[in-house]
Amino acid sequence: MLAELPLVEHPDLLVGRGTSDDAGVVRVREDLALIQTLDFFTPIVDDPRTFGRIAAANALSDVYAMGGAPLTAMNIVCFPRKTLPLDVLREVLLGGHEVVHQAGALLVGGHSVEDPELKYGLSVTGIVHPDRVITNAGARPGDRLLLTKPLGTGVLATAIKGGMAPAEVESEAVRWMTTLNGDAAEAMQEVRASACTDITGFGLLGHALELARASGVTLRIEASRVPIIVGAVELASMGMIPAGSFANRRFCERAVTVEAGVDSLLVDLLADAQTSGGLLICVPESGAADLHAELERRHVPHPEIGCVVERSRGAIRVVP
Amino acid sequence: MLAELPLVEHPDLLVGRGTSDDAGVVRVREDLALIQTLDFFTPIVDDPRTFGRIAAANALSDVYAMGGAPLTAMNIVCFPRKTLPLDVLREVLLGGHEVVHQAGALLVGGHSVEDPELKYGLSVTGIVHPDRVITNAGARPGDRLLLTKPLGTGVLATAIKGGMAPAEVESEAVRWMTTLNGDAAEAMQEVRASACTDITGFGLLGHALELARASGVTLRIEASRVPIIVGAVELASMGMIPAGSFANRRFCERAVTVEAGVDSLLVDLLADAQTSGGLLICVPESGAADLHAELERRHVPHPEIGCVVERSRGAIRVVP
Repeated sequence: MLAELPLVEHPDLLVGRGTSDDAGVVRVREDLALIQTLDFFTPIVDDPRTFGRIAAANALSDVYAMGGAPLTAMNIVCFPRKTLPLDVLREVLLGGHEVVHQAGALLVGGHSVEDPELKYGLSVTGIVHPDRVITNAGARPGDRLLLTKPLGTGVLATAIKGGMAPAEVESEAVRWMTTLNGDAAEAMQEVRASACTDITGFGLLGHALELARASGVTLRIEASRVPIIVGAVELASMGMIPAGSFANRRFCERAVTVEAGVDSLLVDLLADAQTSGGLLICVPESGAADLHAELERRHVPHPEIGCVVERSRGAIRVVP
Repeated sequence: MLAELPLVEHPDLLVGRGTSDDAGVVRVREDLALIQTLDFFTPIVDDPRTFGRIAAANALSDVYAMGGAPLTAMNIVCFPRKTLPLDVLREVLLGGHEVVHQAGALLVGGHSVEDPELKYGLSVTGIVHPDRVITNAGARPGDRLLLTKPLGTGVLATAIKGGMAPAEVESEAVRWMTTLNGDAAEAMQEVRASACTDITGFGLLGHALELARASGVTLRIEASRVPIIVGAVELASMGMIPAGSFANRRFCERAVTVEAGVDSLLVDLLADAQTSGGLLICVPESGAADLHAELERRHVPHPEIGCVVERSRGAIRVVP
């Protein structure tokens, strides 16, 4: 619906709502552009401080996905003060504040409204040199694909809500969802990656599809090389798949070719709706070794999960 | 609650959450600062397009109040898609888009969530020269006080909800709530006003009180000179006073001295919670004539409603 609004064109609007990029980018000086994005949602874990940390890492991620550095953040709060103690809100806000601070950004304000249901998120502004903006439209045949966090947080959030997630699996999911994509963004700027998107609600397949379309290429994804959080496959096999992931799989169906030999359960996980997922980075083959090294140096996982090829019938090809 | 978060200090954070200013201000270059603010709320009129326009004018106002020019905006949407047709959302967004466009800002994105209750607003970024930021802390004894919109939109919104507002009174209120404070902001920059705040939820008394406290002065407000939307006094006398306005009056009670001869109904209106209200501008006496002229030239109302005096016992003194 937001996409239906009249599109605005302006020489300083480097990335607007016309593409499926994660954020808008506006040039304010020859050597300075702002990256802007906002996101908020209902809790996906029980602990309010953890929810606040996840929501902040998730909101900041769109800035990192475009190669920027977070500058400021503002809180967006819907809170049911009649049914929840204010301590819950305090914890959510403290969690968000911690992560914003960790990201080196300044919390400059926000707004809260009364609401029957708790929701929290942030409006984030980052900065980047206009020549260094990394969009989802720059992937070229021959590029390698790296993914910096394992998939499965959608399945795990569903299992957590259902009380079915073992404690160690839950804490592993929380660890990934609260991990900032800042180190990964720094690494990809070092090597001048060709394209990037972060993996959130549309899952790996959905975001990869947007990137493939924006770049006019096909992505070849090797399913067996895609990292999955330990325990997620088992929980998915028990039916712990969120509605959003089913919707993603349906949405991608026509554009995604799955070759024989790929487990259907694995495809479910490739489509799993992520919260605060990793970066999917496209890098020319010549820069791949450097990117691996830069990510390794920052202790960021860097599995290579496929490559970019000339556009063929399907925008995404999943192979075993 | 947002105010309880740990305060952050940073040399580039020109206005943070420590004062009661309308927005945060961050310096990004020696000659460039960002003004950032966000606001969203439930409908206060029935027509969705009008609601969108009011919400946008209201969100943009915080940038104007600090002397800035809006640069970008992002939509914040909570929408009950199960109970309201999507056409309603389309109209709300179009209304917001119209006003953002009118303000010369770029709509760069946004986020929507499912919600039992419609809420809409925007996260707005404006720009200003760091030396030209106008805060609520610069008022000095001798300054004149000008108010650029009449009061009464809280009373009128209550009457509209109750079906008690005559059509012409409603359209007058809508006209003020959808009027941008951009011309007023331009005028006050021309004459280098000493302080400013926009009048929103805390009413004239509440926002004047914040300004008086931040500046360490007392504001002397002449009740008879404060502009009120025609019809609002009558509706207030019929009891059409929103809960927020009562709360404002209670909140201000101890710091506001009301001299004998001021009608209590008028004090209710001075405390009336406004949506997208005008700017309360403080200007040195030497610049007052110029400010009147600059506002007049831009067809902005410019009644002088009082002056700034040395801090005395009460931060606000209301005289007949």
